[in-house]
Amino acid sequence: MSDRGLFVVIEGGDRVGKSTQVRALAAALELSGVDHVITHEPGGTPVGNTLRDLLLDPESDLDDRCEALLYAADKAQHVSRVVLPALAAGQTVVSDRYVGSMLAYQGAGRRLNVDDLKAIAGWATGGLRPDLTVILDIEPARAVARARNLDRLELAGADFHARVRDAFLVQAADDPDRYLVLPALVSVRTTAAKIRTAVGTLLGRELAIPELHEPSQRHG
Amino acid sequence: MSDRGLFVVIEGGDRVGKSTQVRALAAALELSGVDHVITHEPGGTPVGNTLRDLLLDPESDLDDRCEALLYAADKAQHVSRVVLPALAAGQTVVSDRYVGSMLAYQGAGRRLNVDDLKAIAGWATGGLRPDLTVILDIEPARAVARARNLDRLELAGADFHARVRDAFLVQAADDPDRYLVLPALVSVRTTAAKIRTAVGTLLGRELAIPELHEPSQRHG
Repeated sequence: MSDRGLFVVIEGGDRVGKSTQVRALAAALELSGVDHVITHEPGGTPVGNTLRDLLLDPESDLDDRCEALLYAADKAQHVSRVVLPALAAGQTVVSDRYVGSMLAYQGAGRRLNVDDLKAIAGWATGGLRPDLTVILDIEPARAVARARNLDRLELAGADFHARVRDAFLVQAADDPDRYLVLPALVSVRTTAAKIRTAVGTLLGRELAIPELHEPSQRHG
Repeated sequence: MSDRGLFVVIEGGDRVGKSTQVRALAAALELSGVDHVITHEPGGTPVGNTLRDLLLDPESDLDDRCEALLYAADKAQHVSRVVLPALAAGQTVVSDRYVGSMLAYQGAGRRLNVDDLKAIAGWATGGLRPDLTVILDIEPARAVARARNLDRLELAGADFHARVRDAFLVQAADDPDRYLVLPALVSVRTTAAKIRTAVGTLLGRELAIPELHEPSQRHG
């Protein structure tokens, strides 16, 4: 067996509880003594944080292709500087978003050609694929109803977000062994347990159950 | 004949006098009453200026693919927001750098696959090609000897700049009808006259000769 670490990605629409589940998984890994790195896209590097500000700022007047290429640039930096070194050191990497988001938002959402985007994202990441992608699925109308202080992509409209959701579901259907689709907006504990079990199976060990606090307001 | 404007690009290594020649051509177009837009890459848009700062800052620790994708993102924004609208309005566009620089610096310089870069740059720009690309050619050793306050790319070393120069010459050799290779470091007036003649030929009219001042120190 290789010493390469496990690469887990949490994907889904906006405000479906991704960062809550990333924290829950991190807590379980920590409690179980699994060496791990928690990271996110866009961002996760100093250069990526500059790009994140540009991408999410409602004032940015970004051409769709420029937007997609900035996401790809962020991925190149993130994979080369954070993800690959951690995996090579045998660490489990948990990322809040990855290539799936680019295909869903810039492909299905912005209607750019998905094959082009796959080629660009594949070039940016050197073809690195997650071992497990968890998709937190929610009907877009319910997600929007929960949102406040919308950023640039969240402002793109209900039809946009419906296309994004469908794209995530298609990604999962095309490669079911590497995807786990879970309904968002159910109990945080129930969802966390399912993710913990799936990751534990891939690690070949049972993960300890951390103390979790159900957030009362919104999930990140 | 189409009403689309003429797209002229000035390329070449660093500090070979590109911006001096852009200004000289702008002055000739102005004096001749040719409606025109002067622009540059990276930059030329608010988003592009943010990317330019990131790309040229010696403190930026950029992965090579991230760097290339940021250049491509800059091109997407620049073409969609500045170059295409101006060409559609019948204006002559003069750009200080374009796709050729990405192929030379990120391809030959950084040794990324040039076919991949062509595909990415083509996607970013919608395949827009200049009507004329002027390459100001200089032996890298002479360019470095003239340089002060080097930016991130200029610091990349003599072998890097030798490969960049060769790449520009190969681009021109592959498509001689659309390229004009001129030796840098000869008289600014002589070079300006050759560029003016080439652009005038494409515009189907003779361009007026502006007053030029030979810079005593360095060219931009």
